[in-house]
Amino acid sequence: MKDEIRARIKNLRDRMREKNIDICYITGDDYHLSEYSGAYFGTREFFSGFTGSAGVLVITRDSAGLFTDGRYFTQAKNQLADTGIDLMKMGMKGVPTAKEYIADLCAGSDESPCTIAFDGRTVSAAFGDELAAIKGATVMADFDPVGDLWDGRPAFPVSEVFVLDEKYTGESALSKLKRVRMKMEEYGADVCALSSLDDIAWTLNMRGADVECNPVFMSNLLIGKDRATLFIQSDALNEDVRTYLLQTGVDIKDYDKFYEECENLKLEGKVFLADKKRINYRLFEIIKDEKTILKENPTVLFKAIKNETEIVNLTEVHRHDGACVTRLMMWAKGLTDGEATELDAATFVDEQRKKIEDFYDFSFPTISAYGANAAMMHYAATPENNAVIRKGGMLLVDSGGQYLRGTTDITRTFAIGEVSDGMKKAFTLTLKGMLALADAVFLKGCSGYSLDVLAREALWKEGIDYRCGTGHGVGYMLNVHESPNAFRWKYNPGVSEIADIEPGMVTTDEPGVYEEGRYGIRIENELLCEKAFENEYGIFLRFKTLTLAPIDLDLIDVKYMNADDIARLNDYHRTVRRELMPLMEDESEREFLERYTAELK
Amino acid sequence: MKDEIRARIKNLRDRMREKNIDICYITGDDYHLSEYSGAYFGTREFFSGFTGSAGVLVITRDSAGLFTDGRYFTQAKNQLADTGIDLMKMGMKGVPTAKEYIADLCAGSDESPCTIAFDGRTVSAAFGDELAAIKGATVMADFDPVGDLWDGRPAFPVSEVFVLDEKYTGESALSKLKRVRMKMEEYGADVCALSSLDDIAWTLNMRGADVECNPVFMSNLLIGKDRATLFIQSDALNEDVRTYLLQTGVDIKDYDKFYEECENLKLEGKVFLADKKRINYRLFEIIKDEKTILKENPTVLFKAIKNETEIVNLTEVHRHDGACVTRLMMWAKGLTDGEATELDAATFVDEQRKKIEDFYDFSFPTISAYGANAAMMHYAATPENNAVIRKGGMLLVDSGGQYLRGTTDITRTFAIGEVSDGMKKAFTLTLKGMLALADAVFLKGCSGYSLDVLAREALWKEGIDYRCGTGHGVGYMLNVHESPNAFRWKYNPGVSEIADIEPGMVTTDEPGVYEEGRYGIRIENELLCEKAFENEYGIFLRFKTLTLAPIDLDLIDVKYMNADDIARLNDYHRTVRRELMPLMEDESEREFLERYTAELK
Repeated sequence: MKDEIRARIKNLRDRMREKNIDICYITGDDYHLSEYSGAYFGTREFFSGFTGSAGVLVITRDSAGLFTDGRYFTQAKNQLADTGIDLMKMGMKGVPTAKEYIADLCAGSDESPCTIAFDGRTVSAAFGDELAAIKGATVMADFDPVGDLWDGRPAFPVSEVFVLDEKYTGESALSKLKRVRMKMEEYGADVCALSSLDDIAWTLNMRGADVECNPVFMSNLLIGKDRATLFIQSDALNEDVRTYLLQTGVDIKDYDKFYEECENLKLEGKVFLADKKRINYRLFEIIKDEKTILKENPTVLFKAIKNETEIVNLTEVHRHDGACVTRLMMWAKGLTDGEATELDAATFVDEQRKKIEDFYDFSFPTISAYGANAAMMHYAATPENNAVIRKGGMLLVDSGGQYLRGTTDITRTFAIGEVSDGMKKAFTLTLKGMLALADAVFLKGCSGYSLDVLAREALWKEGIDYRCGTGHGVGYMLNVHESPNAFRWKYNPGVSEIADIEPGMVTTDEPGVYEEGRYGIRIENELLCEKAFENEYGIFLRFKTLTLAPIDLDLIDVKYMNADDIARLNDYHRTVRRELMPLMEDESEREFLERYTAELK
Repeated sequence: MKDEIRARIKNLRDRMREKNIDICYITGDDYHLSEYSGAYFGTREFFSGFTGSAGVLVITRDSAGLFTDGRYFTQAKNQLADTGIDLMKMGMKGVPTAKEYIADLCAGSDESPCTIAFDGRTVSAAFGDELAAIKGATVMADFDPVGDLWDGRPAFPVSEVFVLDEKYTGESALSKLKRVRMKMEEYGADVCALSSLDDIAWTLNMRGADVECNPVFMSNLLIGKDRATLFIQSDALNEDVRTYLLQTGVDIKDYDKFYEECENLKLEGKVFLADKKRINYRLFEIIKDEKTILKENPTVLFKAIKNETEIVNLTEVHRHDGACVTRLMMWAKGLTDGEATELDAATFVDEQRKKIEDFYDFSFPTISAYGANAAMMHYAATPENNAVIRKGGMLLVDSGGQYLRGTTDITRTFAIGEVSDGMKKAFTLTLKGMLALADAVFLKGCSGYSLDVLAREALWKEGIDYRCGTGHGVGYMLNVHESPNAFRWKYNPGVSEIADIEPGMVTTDEPGVYEEGRYGIRIENELLCEKAFENEYGIFLRFKTLTLAPIDLDLIDVKYMNADDIARLNDYHRTVRRELMPLMEDESEREFLERYTAELK
């Protein structure tokens, strides 16, 4: 394998020389900036052997470096050994970013300008633009490093797409297109180019299975003033969907014709509306000029604000989803020491979910982590690395389902047997924060920056932080991580801007404690924003908690809670009991739910 | 008077015609963007008769409009009657801003380009730049609308300046200049141009009395790599100060020579460092080109972070300041019905402050407002409008002193006799927020956006908001409103950015309730940011409350407080009692302090 890697890099360098390329930049991303990318897009892995989910490769005529983050240092070190590729440990002191590294190479290059080549389809418009702006550099964005080199390359993802009925979506595609067109008119655009797969799936009320756990399909969509054109693989379409598209005013063209069509429309002088954060550099290169309107896709905000139908469906599906997690809890609490493993827990809850009527997929691969494993935020148990669940520790399970009636994301942490006072304290502080944020009442105009502290303050007071945001937006039978709403404490001007929280948005509330080598705690509920009331001061908003499953009372030390904390937990448990009791299937389940939603005094 | 106004405008229009000016833009600001401006700068009042503290005048050949905000609609209506000037009610639906109004005039003008004239010294760089960017407009920024017209114009402000000893400032001017020069070197600047008076006063450790309540002096400062030049009126300088400046490497030039010198330095090719938010358009016009480095004055952050000496001094002066307010409280609590007025209360506390050893001035004119008057945030009692203090209402007093050992700003609201349950509830909610923010522990990197909600949440839950920020930075024997730290809930990208809260910064914490026509409540303490601890998660910060005076227990309804709220108040009152008791002068004062800092159960 290492020899193969070396041979592939040698071949690449030969082609770089032929084309006067100095630096080749290689990612493992798909053409749509998807969060997960399929095997077909494993170009970085092909040239490095590195299988981590994050990392980029920079190859010059005489050096090669793989940039990845702390999660993967050990794995990358092993996988890169003897390949001639240096491991660049991102985030470590003195280690440049890929961009800084490339800029240094360009500054030190004899060639002028220094040519940076990449496949513009696998690089974001924003990053490609940064590379193009490097002093002394010129970019060649149509270079495919793989070429014909990859024997047995996995197939390009394609699945049969389907229409998500209006009883699930609550709004027709025609109506959604109309809303996009109103924004286009407001901005003065002729064509709106959508390339982000969840924006397309939402707009057309269509779903597919081309990206792991994201029910989307490979496509691009051009929305004109009267008609739209969907660029999609023909194998993805059956007759019903073709008819549906026709009726919706959407023409069908082959997926591969997208860039050509954009070039033609530019030649015709059409004004494009596109979202620089959500298109690749290939498209950006075609449309970038002073006429192009670069704004957030109108669909981003539309999609984030769930409509009445979606909310009713979500509310209902969360009851069933919560019942699954309650059964998982009952199962976990009933385990004898060493009886089961992390993967057993994941399988248990996965099987529960599959029984739900309109289950489609999981929102993401279930995270099941026991003991110290739960301290690793991105831990995934594997058959080779699968901890046994023992008494005296905590089991963290983060899971969710894609249902026709919506997407769920829930984390619960359970005490297995009796646990230490320190664990109880950490759990109770986490819970206080989770409840305080869920209980917020706030003026319209607050973004997640203004509210995040409510979730962190109890932990911060004890010198504890979790090194991530408090929560993310959640799609509807779509991506479980969805922009533009989120909860974050650190405001980085121009870098990570998040939207105001508006009624209809769904955001997770998931503070945690991660004690390296010891334990991990996360408690995650999804919050639906609602209008609370309106008066002379403005519109006040609040949250309704969608997620319904008991919080483990065995992990609570009530001495860390004040009267407000206790009232919040009791309120929540009262709702959980009321909503889930009818779904409990026998007396033992009902007793269990009763016990774990009992009122705290 | 109205005839005079008309004659002045006619004269102005004659000169506008002579010089081909289409629009004249007139402010009442001084040349340094000071918060308050002296009578000399009353150009807007001269041409309109309008005496409000905020407003601008736009005069064309055949129209005139005064733009002011809701506080002044009634007053402006009366003062503008029969002057031919239209009142433009800012913030009202359909009313353009001054800039929009001017842009509309330019768009509709036959002349091309349309000439907008103003005195660039009285307009901020940012706003002048906006005017210059109006389509079809050209600006003439050296037009003085007053000219020789103003018989008996008040004198240009000048006071004898003095050096603030290092025992107060904790750092020599030489050291401060060195720090500025290090920043200049980092940025690659030859000259740092300071025009904001507090930046100059801080840098040189000098103070004056040229702006009401701001102990600053009219000047500009150019800091070169080796020497600096202070542009100041010669009457402001005595021999001691001249010697001091000489020893500090600061040359003295006349105040009027500043712009000429800047022009010369530009001609020599010098690279300027200047702060676009803190210079006027006149200076900006001279220095603006691609070489000029436009960044925040390095002094802004330096000044905000108080040093050890300043902190020790401030801590001590707050004890004495708090004792004054405690005496005011005792006085107010002892009043019989109708015995005194708002102005009596202001006078009482002002006289108390004057007795403090190193008292220099008030931080701002004391606000004393009884009953419904306190609901007006900018209320000022006058001999004509001076409410009598009666039983059954609340008295709000917002006051502070400029001492050589620092600047204070404190608001207390007192029950006069027995007040309603509604008032107590509103007060208690305000107090909960004030205490929650003061008790915050947070990671370094938080700005006031991330923390503000802690002060508001208790009020927001009840549908109440105060329509202003929660707090502002406070200078040290300098401006009571000081950038760049503040607490605000609404994040406006690019508009109102505020700095991260850092150890040494002092920020007010002043939530309130303003019930129009009924009552006003504000509780204001100053918070000093300190390092709490540091661990693997980062540096944690917290606040120490500098302000020391009892919170009126008669206004607290304990049923709205949880155990944390009560503990916070008791902690605070314990500190107040400990620190102020030695300053109480007789048994009755000691008893009073004891009673009003008693532990809540």
